[in-house]
Amino acid sequence: MKAAIVTIGDEILIGQIVDTNSAFIAKALDDIGFQIVEMISISDTEKAISETMNRYQNQVDLVVMTGGLGPTKDDVTKKTFCSYFNDVLISDSEVLKHVTALIEDFYKRKITQMNIDQALVPSKATVLFNKVGTAPGMLMKHEQTFFVSLPGVPYEMKYLVSEVLIPYLEQSFEPSYNIHQTLITHGVGESLLAERIADWENDLPSYVHLAYLPSPRMVKLRLSISGKDKVFLEDAIREQVEKLLPLIKDCLIGLNENETIFKVVSDLLKENNLTIACAESCTGGQIAKLLNEIPGASAYFQGGVVAYATQSKIDVLGVSENTINKNSVVSEQVALEMALGAKRLFKSDLAIATTGNAGPSKGDSDVEVGTVCLALVSKFGEKTFTFNFGQPREKVIDSAVNKAFEIIREEIIKNNS
Amino acid sequence: MKAAIVTIGDEILIGQIVDTNSAFIAKALDDIGFQIVEMISISDTEKAISETMNRYQNQVDLVVMTGGLGPTKDDVTKKTFCSYFNDVLISDSEVLKHVTALIEDFYKRKITQMNIDQALVPSKATVLFNKVGTAPGMLMKHEQTFFVSLPGVPYEMKYLVSEVLIPYLEQSFEPSYNIHQTLITHGVGESLLAERIADWENDLPSYVHLAYLPSPRMVKLRLSISGKDKVFLEDAIREQVEKLLPLIKDCLIGLNENETIFKVVSDLLKENNLTIACAESCTGGQIAKLLNEIPGASAYFQGGVVAYATQSKIDVLGVSENTINKNSVVSEQVALEMALGAKRLFKSDLAIATTGNAGPSKGDSDVEVGTVCLALVSKFGEKTFTFNFGQPREKVIDSAVNKAFEIIREEIIKNNS
Repeated sequence: MKAAIVTIGDEILIGQIVDTNSAFIAKALDDIGFQIVEMISISDTEKAISETMNRYQNQVDLVVMTGGLGPTKDDVTKKTFCSYFNDVLISDSEVLKHVTALIEDFYKRKITQMNIDQALVPSKATVLFNKVGTAPGMLMKHEQTFFVSLPGVPYEMKYLVSEVLIPYLEQSFEPSYNIHQTLITHGVGESLLAERIADWENDLPSYVHLAYLPSPRMVKLRLSISGKDKVFLEDAIREQVEKLLPLIKDCLIGLNENETIFKVVSDLLKENNLTIACAESCTGGQIAKLLNEIPGASAYFQGGVVAYATQSKIDVLGVSENTINKNSVVSEQVALEMALGAKRLFKSDLAIATTGNAGPSKGDSDVEVGTVCLALVSKFGEKTFTFNFGQPREKVIDSAVNKAFEIIREEIIKNNS
Repeated sequence: MKAAIVTIGDEILIGQIVDTNSAFIAKALDDIGFQIVEMISISDTEKAISETMNRYQNQVDLVVMTGGLGPTKDDVTKKTFCSYFNDVLISDSEVLKHVTALIEDFYKRKITQMNIDQALVPSKATVLFNKVGTAPGMLMKHEQTFFVSLPGVPYEMKYLVSEVLIPYLEQSFEPSYNIHQTLITHGVGESLLAERIADWENDLPSYVHLAYLPSPRMVKLRLSISGKDKVFLEDAIREQVEKLLPLIKDCLIGLNENETIFKVVSDLLKENNLTIACAESCTGGQIAKLLNEIPGASAYFQGGVVAYATQSKIDVLGVSENTINKNSVVSEQVALEMALGAKRLFKSDLAIATTGNAGPSKGDSDVEVGTVCLALVSKFGEKTFTFNFGQPREKVIDSAVNKAFEIIREEIIKNNS
């Protein structure tokens, strides 16, 4: 079961937007056993679209295309899709009814010819009904390949993939499985980790694939296996994980495929009925955002303050001016007072604070570029830390955010086990 | 000058990560006149890499590949790259010196064989020296095509593209130009906008390409033109922009290629010496993040509170319990008290607040899903608003954030012109 994913639009090719649709579709297809052989972004011209359809015709079982289904002239996917199959466009009465209702009832204006034309679909296509927008998805089987065309607006695409396309594909293809097991490690670099597990890696059977995914402070190890016999696949992965675990016990933070240290911390907070707040300077809201975006965040996340300006640290968080003058605004003492301020303001069990200079140039403080101070306060005590995360800016911020979550995790585990 | 961008890694094909490298490279190449014909993501196997190199050989002038250059076994790009050109790997003494220094001085540990091997490069390659990491970039010209291989770690790739590759390409290729002019409109839907400008669009010369890029509350119109004669290209675009402007005057918010309503608001705040703070509930830190991430934010952004829990609205922002009980936590009155609280806490000139129910289910309030209340307070007065942005959740949050910036923009323009 091979698949290709095609995104259509010059805005992608000139770098005006990042294509996030492909990853969403890939994940959904991988989950039901497809092997994605290529993802490609192409221009919104009839030539590029039909050449790409041709290239994948009979080479893969499924081609999922997104984009180019809008009502305006620059969107040529529907026309090209239709002529590729030598079909004609007809108006779908269900779609027309839906578009009319959406425009007239929700947007409260009269329907126009462009809106009416959105209900046109190739006569032989299976319509993938789009409840959350005006452009329907379309599916056509041609020789050995299913071709699917979906709108590019992310929330419309997501709805159609999850609610309409995946259930359809599950009925149309024999079950197949991709099993991935990701092991997330923090604090040990990629090459050191590789040397540590070299013997195990050399003994891996050829049908188990290992990948290293490094990012600041973290390496994900992903074991993958594909096939039809789910029990065999799961056993094969489990056997390898059991051998690997003792080798990485000290730096392992989680085992769930989509686990992150953010999710781990979120789960620990929930399990232990702890609440948290944050006070951020150099991480500028990233910690709050990460604490906040996990479903169920309201159970533990009390809130956060982004105290960007030095004056805000004094006014909002109650950091003493004297502490700043004596120690510099980037100091463990200031981080500590920020954390205490957040804990007091939000009445939380824990509070984490960051203050640093992410660079590229020196800011309000004259500490070295890359320096970050962190503080964690809780009923178990107060802790402060100083690190230098080097450069560039992006790496400093990522490292500081990750380190903050490592600190929170260790504190909760140490005091609750 | 045609180019293709190739990203290598199964983590992309299974949807484990979103490929953001391609957009960065595309933008950089587009800026110096390249036409990106395709972006493709492929598996990290020798077969997929060499087939893809073959496919683009002599079809494009430049192929930029990222990923698969790490020290571990799953990274096969360097080996494949080298054997594609029938070359051999040799150790580069400059790179080895740099890797040794980085490991021994910065990470304070002994260098290993894996680190030493990172200094291997094909003997005929031009080395793109990587100051911010251990894996060097490589460049080889083969027949009509330049092939470039870069590490996939985003900040390393960005450094190499901006500081090393682009200057090299500017010297190696004759100057060519892609001129884009983006006009950003807010508040008028795509099909209504298209009908309004239909006559102008029909009269566009064939060498000027128009694209519509819709997202919640916003449509970007992008005019593009490519060629060698910069003066002609710029004149042709300017002529069309001048004809288009009067047709969209009421909904236009900006003309800079990379302008966003966030950048527009940031500029307005700076020009008028105004400071701002925010208090967010349903937008969960998005407004703070957007205010914060524009360079120079410290000139106007005083800080923000993410008051997720109802109790935090009371404790931190000083919203009265009585107001919440009388009006519901999602109400204009609560939004107003949140904004007043943020303005007082951060001593800012303006403060914006959001409270709403983004769905999918009803939360602390029983207002309809999709309802968002906003408030803006400033020395010019207090304003409150209620909207229903429908569903799904993502669209509600995007719409609320955009609407918040529209409100700030209008308020500043009205009172400072």
